[in-house]
Amino acid sequence: MDLLPDILVNAVDSIAKLPGVGKKSAMRIVLNLTKWDSPQLESFTNSISKISELSSCQQCGMFCEDKFCSICLSDKRQSSCLCIVENITDLMAIENSGQYRGRYLVLGGVLNPLMGIGPDQLNFSTLKERVSTNNIEEIILALSPSVEGDATCAYIKQLIPTEVSVQRIGFGVPIGGSLEYLDPLTISKAFENKRVL
Amino acid sequence: MDLLPDILVNAVDSIAKLPGVGKKSAMRIVLNLTKWDSPQLESFTNSISKISELSSCQQCGMFCEDKFCSICLSDKRQSSCLCIVENITDLMAIENSGQYRGRYLVLGGVLNPLMGIGPDQLNFSTLKERVSTNNIEEIILALSPSVEGDATCAYIKQLIPTEVSVQRIGFGVPIGGSLEYLDPLTISKAFENKRVL
Repeated sequence: MDLLPDILVNAVDSIAKLPGVGKKSAMRIVLNLTKWDSPQLESFTNSISKISELSSCQQCGMFCEDKFCSICLSDKRQSSCLCIVENITDLMAIENSGQYRGRYLVLGGVLNPLMGIGPDQLNFSTLKERVSTNNIEEIILALSPSVEGDATCAYIKQLIPTEVSVQRIGFGVPIGGSLEYLDPLTISKAFENKRVL
Repeated sequence: MDLLPDILVNAVDSIAKLPGVGKKSAMRIVLNLTKWDSPQLESFTNSISKISELSSCQQCGMFCEDKFCSICLSDKRQSSCLCIVENITDLMAIENSGQYRGRYLVLGGVLNPLMGIGPDQLNFSTLKERVSTNNIEEIILALSPSVEGDATCAYIKQLIPTEVSVQRIGFGVPIGGSLEYLDPLTISKAFENKRVL
């Protein structure tokens, strides 16, 4: 690589830091970038720099440019229903399904004492406040089906006043999933969650 | 996507312009970038911006930061031998093989009249000059084995004084290649290029 100018080597190293991009793809990307003109490169780097200006919604933790995100500001959303998710990607997946029209709370993870993640590391502070001030009537827990997810659900359940309904999303066979290739735990969950037709 | 802030949408659009990166991977990359701190983002965008400062070696056309590239400046390179390649990636592939210790000339493509690429669009201007002033004794044509590559080789051959040896790299079965999966043209080239053991 010593035949390449430092500018090129540095650019390749930078691009290779992106997730899922190795050294070879990074070189291919950089060689492509060398064909871009200055304004194109500038608008590219500008839009990346702007990422540092993103902030989190003070209410739910979703990305936003101002104090609150578009979901928390929207009056078309059912404000009495709160969906608790682990992270923003989970929130976006739920939004993509178009199934849910309430508000969210992004926890930032699940309780994991072994990894040093206790209640103080997660976004629980606003939860109790929101439940009391926003007149929340229903809480849907969309946390992952793991030991840590289960523990977090149990922890949230005991935080919430008993008059609020706390539910967890259903687990079972995914649509298009073949029983043959599913893990035993999913299948046993699917049997637990069987419904009368 | 209207629930996402413009900053995020713009960043995803920018990343998706990179070769081999689709919208989904771009979103994954941008979500990862949101976890970077400002100095990290800044050093990333700086190294990308610098790409516009790259220039081409005035002698061979390789990337360089100054007037000439490290290969043209090196006195360890055989200056009487010139390898003609289509583009910089081909040059880098040859350098990686470690087989060649002469100098290069990057043409910038091959003759392709149907695509409007004639001799004026390629880097032929320096070729004649270099052959006479640099005492070139041997020219190796590392152009692709296509109709256009063949035509370009023929064109170069008639440009060069007859006392200079003009050779073309060998075509045949690649190392590790299986005859079963090779195209008929490669196999017939391999028969043409058979050698006494």
